[in-house]
Amino acid sequence: MVALAGGVGGARLVDGLDRALPPGALSVIVNTGDDFHHWGLRVSPDLDTIMYTLAGMSPRDRGWGIEGDTFQVLEEVSRRGGDDWFQLGDRDLATHLARTRMLASGASLTETTRALCAELGVSRPILPMSDGPRPTLIVTPDGKELAFQHWLVRERARPSVTEVRFGDRAYPSDATREALKHAELVVICPSNPYVSIDPILQLDGIHALVRSKPTIAVSPIIGGKAVRGPLARMIQDLGNERPSAEAVAKHYGPLLQAFVVHTGDRFRSGYPLLETNILIRSAGDRLTLAQEILELGSDLS
Amino acid sequence: MVALAGGVGGARLVDGLDRALPPGALSVIVNTGDDFHHWGLRVSPDLDTIMYTLAGMSPRDRGWGIEGDTFQVLEEVSRRGGDDWFQLGDRDLATHLARTRMLASGASLTETTRALCAELGVSRPILPMSDGPRPTLIVTPDGKELAFQHWLVRERARPSVTEVRFGDRAYPSDATREALKHAELVVICPSNPYVSIDPILQLDGIHALVRSKPTIAVSPIIGGKAVRGPLARMIQDLGNERPSAEAVAKHYGPLLQAFVVHTGDRFRSGYPLLETNILIRSAGDRLTLAQEILELGSDLS
Repeated sequence: MVALAGGVGGARLVDGLDRALPPGALSVIVNTGDDFHHWGLRVSPDLDTIMYTLAGMSPRDRGWGIEGDTFQVLEEVSRRGGDDWFQLGDRDLATHLARTRMLASGASLTETTRALCAELGVSRPILPMSDGPRPTLIVTPDGKELAFQHWLVRERARPSVTEVRFGDRAYPSDATREALKHAELVVICPSNPYVSIDPILQLDGIHALVRSKPTIAVSPIIGGKAVRGPLARMIQDLGNERPSAEAVAKHYGPLLQAFVVHTGDRFRSGYPLLETNILIRSAGDRLTLAQEILELGSDLS
Repeated sequence: MVALAGGVGGARLVDGLDRALPPGALSVIVNTGDDFHHWGLRVSPDLDTIMYTLAGMSPRDRGWGIEGDTFQVLEEVSRRGGDDWFQLGDRDLATHLARTRMLASGASLTETTRALCAELGVSRPILPMSDGPRPTLIVTPDGKELAFQHWLVRERARPSVTEVRFGDRAYPSDATREALKHAELVVICPSNPYVSIDPILQLDGIHALVRSKPTIAVSPIIGGKAVRGPLARMIQDLGNERPSAEAVAKHYGPLLQAFVVHTGDRFRSGYPLLETNILIRSAGDRLTLAQEILELGSDLS
């Protein structure tokens, strides 16, 4: 089974799938379009959120970083007038330092992620979608292109989005392609379709591969609102419609063989629709949803 | 006036000279032979010790880092099984991150040091001896070459030293050469001659420049013992003699026009010898010694 995932929503479902499946059965392909350099270090927000979630290190009440982390380095950088708009915690920094050093020594992002996971005791394969740089760019009404985290965090997602741009043709990592080739089921996690899932789908050959597999997506919209993040805004800006589970399903189009929505969000569709609790804050809720998705998946194939 | 300095002993005298001299009168040329890469970051131990001392950030009871610093990142790196033999504090890390980023963006170490000093409110010029890499290597009896901090900290200075090696011909920074050209007095701080001062003197053209100026050295040995660090051992290993102020003076040879020793360490010399308190832990003691040195210097010229 392969899960395509971005940030927090993705991480929570991946955590559930991880609990539901036997070892070796799950590979997670993770968006790296948000990756950027900060303080001279390579930061991979979505990889880290998923890794920390699977390692049991994620905070309960925020969607990034490590539970109980301190911010001594950030405070000092701020005191000296440095870049302090992105919150890097001290323990979190150990990840970015190690990743940057490994990449500089010639390791791929795939190898680097495997080594970081091993250090934290995470054994499920977490696969960066690509080993190359492939930044997601947000185009704003004044025609500026902003790196995604600059738009989301530094600009607090205030500028409207006229376009999400991915740059030139880019390639998935070998491990990503292989995992998808052998997948019997693809689950698109409840992540932002524009900036978490599309970056994966737009990699060379990936859309066709996903289309050739039984694919289930989970809605990131509940009752017309995004569970977190700027997705509702982006559906209005980019899709010219009201945020809804249906709008997300429409965005994925013929890729889907089934769709999972929150209780009450049912709409008329040409494929099976699972209506259940998808607000999965607790470990128990995550496991239940994962089991329901796997059941739906076995019905499909 | 130009001071040549290494680590702690150097930093303390530089602090005194800084207090004794009017703004603009002092340049400090600092050993960068101990510089190395750790956690993928460029660490410059002697530059930092001097910068932190002049910024009033140095701890009272140890010779490195920042007073009151925490070690959250180090603890996390250690927990993950990473390199934890070199103690990098969290606030200290802000320095190494900024330096590494500036160097990567094409700034010289001289420019980088000026920018770091400005952030910390240090206005006296602190000049790295060289903008190029110029590692001091410690040769041990088994023929191995160790980078200085690896020998000193990781190996706890346990292996004997058969040779200190500097590699190929290397060049001083332009600012170092200019400062020495215009110097009316050169003070060699009470730093380790083998691994703090010799690396500066061995740079292309520097020995001759220093020799052309009135030069005073301050002994790093008091009563046959090094105030701190492995110098006593190195005098035995490398000079084949008992550690003494005289052995250090002999090492500098014809470079000196005067020498400053601790009370009771007087020896017979062919040049003026100032016998005074050189154990300068307090700010008052540092200022007094600096004033005595400046007086001695004005007698020389």
